[in-house]
Amino acid sequence: MREEYRAELAEVTRLLVTMAQRVRTAMADATDALFSADQSAGEQVLARDTEIDTLYRQVEEKVYDLLARQQPVASDLRLVVTALHVAVDVERMGDLACHVAKIGLRRAPEVAVPEELVPVVRDMARVTDRMAGKITDVLEQADARRAAELERDDDEVDELNRQLYGLLLGTAWRHGVEQAIDGALLSRWYERYADHAVNAGRQIVYLVTGEPVGESTPA
Amino acid sequence: MREEYRAELAEVTRLLVTMAQRVRTAMADATDALFSADQSAGEQVLARDTEIDTLYRQVEEKVYDLLARQQPVASDLRLVVTALHVAVDVERMGDLACHVAKIGLRRAPEVAVPEELVPVVRDMARVTDRMAGKITDVLEQADARRAAELERDDDEVDELNRQLYGLLLGTAWRHGVEQAIDGALLSRWYERYADHAVNAGRQIVYLVTGEPVGESTPA
Repeated sequence: MREEYRAELAEVTRLLVTMAQRVRTAMADATDALFSADQSAGEQVLARDTEIDTLYRQVEEKVYDLLARQQPVASDLRLVVTALHVAVDVERMGDLACHVAKIGLRRAPEVAVPEELVPVVRDMARVTDRMAGKITDVLEQADARRAAELERDDDEVDELNRQLYGLLLGTAWRHGVEQAIDGALLSRWYERYADHAVNAGRQIVYLVTGEPVGESTPA
Repeated sequence: MREEYRAELAEVTRLLVTMAQRVRTAMADATDALFSADQSAGEQVLARDTEIDTLYRQVEEKVYDLLARQQPVASDLRLVVTALHVAVDVERMGDLACHVAKIGLRRAPEVAVPEELVPVVRDMARVTDRMAGKITDVLEQADARRAAELERDDDEVDELNRQLYGLLLGTAWRHGVEQAIDGALLSRWYERYADHAVNAGRQIVYLVTGEPVGESTPA
């Protein structure tokens, strides 16, 4: 029974890996579409979000199925419900990729990101992409150290967020209000994406090792 | 058993009612603190968020306990996991109240909301407060019609959001970039609060009636 339960939990984990990979691709595509002002690429990100939602439902179904058939208690029960929390975070990361794509779409065929912001937004995209990759690693290799790195990556994203605000509010800003709002929102989407990655990472460590890692409330 | 299960689920629902009431108060207090630039009131909203987080943990504990002892299957199982989803939405609404308070705090002793935005932000606060009240109603009275009203309220919030953007991006705007970003973020926080209320409302209808209401992915 315990063996069978482990095997089923591993299947849930595999679904989460697929979800995390799709979400990482979605954010990478959204970022590319943003910088190239490629409308059809942006629209594709939005269209493909339904696939991520479907994967979320599959995790949910699998979890219900597992709960009903295996009737786990105590720590086993917590583990399987944790899988659901991870799925919620990862699904939300997919939504944030859509938000990035939408900012690009609203301005296409113009590029939504003014030149001065390009380096810092590119850095945010780079760091958050690395974070999404680590989520897959942690899921596949149960590596708690890799999850701990996510917190440092998140600090880096927060610092980039501060830099970006400095540019928006600096005296050299010459793009007016609309592009400033878009810049602030963009920064926010990457930052939230990073927050959910940290949250997911923490829960995944628990999911794959059974060891709780600090406290966190759902983001 | 079925009887006992119902009674325990009712206890979870009571916890959710307390949570929803606290969150409604938090947003009302955050709004007041924002308009009065009252620093200590704003800080109190942040401090009291830990109480909401604690309630969230209590729901979680109760749900684990219920799952372990009653071992519900099929629709009963879905109901109890739904309670967890509701708690996640309501907890997140509390976080958004903190976001509103933080914008007020960043500008205190100045008022963060410029005069021209006051009426529309007040309207957003009024509609979203009504929505938070309906969540408690739906939890206590299992009234699906009341939950359906939330969708219309949400449309109203979306319209107010558009109005606010119109003001920010209009030629008459004279407050510069920083206040425009704060205005856009504020609007976003109320709008997200409304989205979570709709999501929670839908799930609560399922929780208290056992009838699913449309599709939704976690917000």
